[in-house]
Amino acid sequence: MKHLLLSAVAAASLAHPTVAQEPAPIPSPGEIAAAAPASDWIAMAPSDLLVMDLAPDAKGKPRRVVIQLMPAPFSQGWIGNIRKLAAAHWWDGTSINRVQDNYVVQWGDATEKKALPKGLVSVAESEYVAKSVRDFESVSSVNARAFMVKKGLKGPPPPPPFDKPEDVYTGVVGFAAGFPVAGGPQFEFWPVHCYGMVGVGRNLSPDTGSGAELYTVIGHAPRHLDRNIAVVGRVISGIEHLSSLPRGTGALGFYEDEAERVPIAAIRVASELASAEQPRFEYLSTDSDSFARYADARANRRDPFFIKPAGGADICNVPVPVRAMSGGK
Amino acid sequence: MKHLLLSAVAAASLAHPTVAQEPAPIPSPGEIAAAAPASDWIAMAPSDLLVMDLAPDAKGKPRRVVIQLMPAPFSQGWIGNIRKLAAAHWWDGTSINRVQDNYVVQWGDATEKKALPKGLVSVAESEYVAKSVRDFESVSSVNARAFMVKKGLKGPPPPPPFDKPEDVYTGVVGFAAGFPVAGGPQFEFWPVHCYGMVGVGRNLSPDTGSGAELYTVIGHAPRHLDRNIAVVGRVISGIEHLSSLPRGTGALGFYEDEAERVPIAAIRVASELASAEQPRFEYLSTDSDSFARYADARANRRDPFFIKPAGGADICNVPVPVRAMSGGK
Repeated sequence: MKHLLLSAVAAASLAHPTVAQEPAPIPSPGEIAAAAPASDWIAMAPSDLLVMDLAPDAKGKPRRVVIQLMPAPFSQGWIGNIRKLAAAHWWDGTSINRVQDNYVVQWGDATEKKALPKGLVSVAESEYVAKSVRDFESVSSVNARAFMVKKGLKGPPPPPPFDKPEDVYTGVVGFAAGFPVAGGPQFEFWPVHCYGMVGVGRNLSPDTGSGAELYTVIGHAPRHLDRNIAVVGRVISGIEHLSSLPRGTGALGFYEDEAERVPIAAIRVASELASAEQPRFEYLSTDSDSFARYADARANRRDPFFIKPAGGADICNVPVPVRAMSGGK
Repeated sequence: MKHLLLSAVAAASLAHPTVAQEPAPIPSPGEIAAAAPASDWIAMAPSDLLVMDLAPDAKGKPRRVVIQLMPAPFSQGWIGNIRKLAAAHWWDGTSINRVQDNYVVQWGDATEKKALPKGLVSVAESEYVAKSVRDFESVSSVNARAFMVKKGLKGPPPPPPFDKPEDVYTGVVGFAAGFPVAGGPQFEFWPVHCYGMVGVGRNLSPDTGSGAELYTVIGHAPRHLDRNIAVVGRVISGIEHLSSLPRGTGALGFYEDEAERVPIAAIRVASELASAEQPRFEYLSTDSDSFARYADARANRRDPFFIKPAGGADICNVPVPVRAMSGGK
């Protein structure tokens, strides 16, 4: 029964060449991504990667988590703070303090008393969304992909301005520079809280958080957090070191016992590491035809395991393919 | 920063009574559920609960997982098999063999050689859906709740037959006897693959699986599995014993090393346990006004943490409230 529940990630080998009278199997989403030409893959700049090294696990194995920071125009105020916090080695010696099942893993200073470095900015709530199509288009042509995911079809971009009120589920969805993004009326766009996305913990409004307290999603997409909290990136490697941690038994999944906290050895922007130590990853361009075919296949699974295609896929069920580059660590 | 990312589950205390000149805080979904009258809660029959006891963890702590089986008319052929497998103690000594991040945990006989008990039935693919509204309505009035979740509004039930082609995302969604259900044209309804739902592993079509190989969802809802595989229940307690297991490093998240497998001590239908050992749980009636208010609040968070309600919630982001009954184990 090894074939059951075939996943896109695991099914990354190419389809076999056809032989006469036998049609080629329809490729899975993973096979489509694996077959994409090298030119459809975009290398991530080390300056956009945040490397979190946890203390080794009980067996002494290293635990490295790599986070890709979001591109402009999204959340740049918080991301600037995060760069400063990493440069100041502020997180070194802090810990993972909260693991709530089907929700989030959260890290930062459990004492809530550690002084923040100078120069952090306070960011306005208005920055939870990117406000203009011009900004948005400068990142990517998400409009051209809008609705494709939801409908499983390619189609023309929706005419702006949008002609009806949108909620976080029924609005435009697409991808900007490799990140899942939703859009609503009045040219607002925002990052979507999919599995693995990284956000900024905060207190009650008007607090928006500094970026020192971070979390990642380890369950079904908590879309109610969209537009309510800053999204600054996503985990691209090592999320299993977070998602498989014991759940906290305190309120909201906080660890009740200090000994349960998982020590963070260091968090650095990858460009500050020695060159040989820098992780190197690339993602499938969300503007590419390969990605369009991949997203269509996610929405309409026709590879051998499936008997009835879904006819659609929500944006969080179309994870952007990411892979380590040869020579990277 | 303890308040950030407040969850419905954790915020289960009642809202404080109002005082003059100070409006009561708007209750969270969890507070609405906690305030529901006892008559809105429905006890689960022990005969509908499957109790899986894993081997104790490394510290010797017991690990019990409780699964609620789906009510008729859904998946009853496979569920009959599961009852027979449990009665035959077939799973005792088998193991959890696969943990794939953001996807599933799967258990059964890793050798794939253990003989199945006599009397299991082979179920047709047509049973992935329930085929008549009569069947459906005999379970629950999901129609009355349809669209409410998606739109965040109460409204009249959609007129059957549905007037447009549906996919698994844009069709009718609602709840039947406490389970998330989606519906499409021609009076078809099917269980939805939300977090914690339990399904039946299978090989390629036309195999539909016996029920001996089971999995549960530990990530974002894999809706592409809807209508392609039998859903037989959901984990209502102890999912953390599954979701926090180390991820398998083999293809599809299978454990590569036998030693990594997690032994299953026993799986029983709860009614076969001694009375004092039977777990007792209840769920908030999905037909109740309390549930309608809860679902509306999930779709439109107005409790203090939130500044911008989502305006909707996908069905998997409206988990049905479940709680242990006093006196239960």
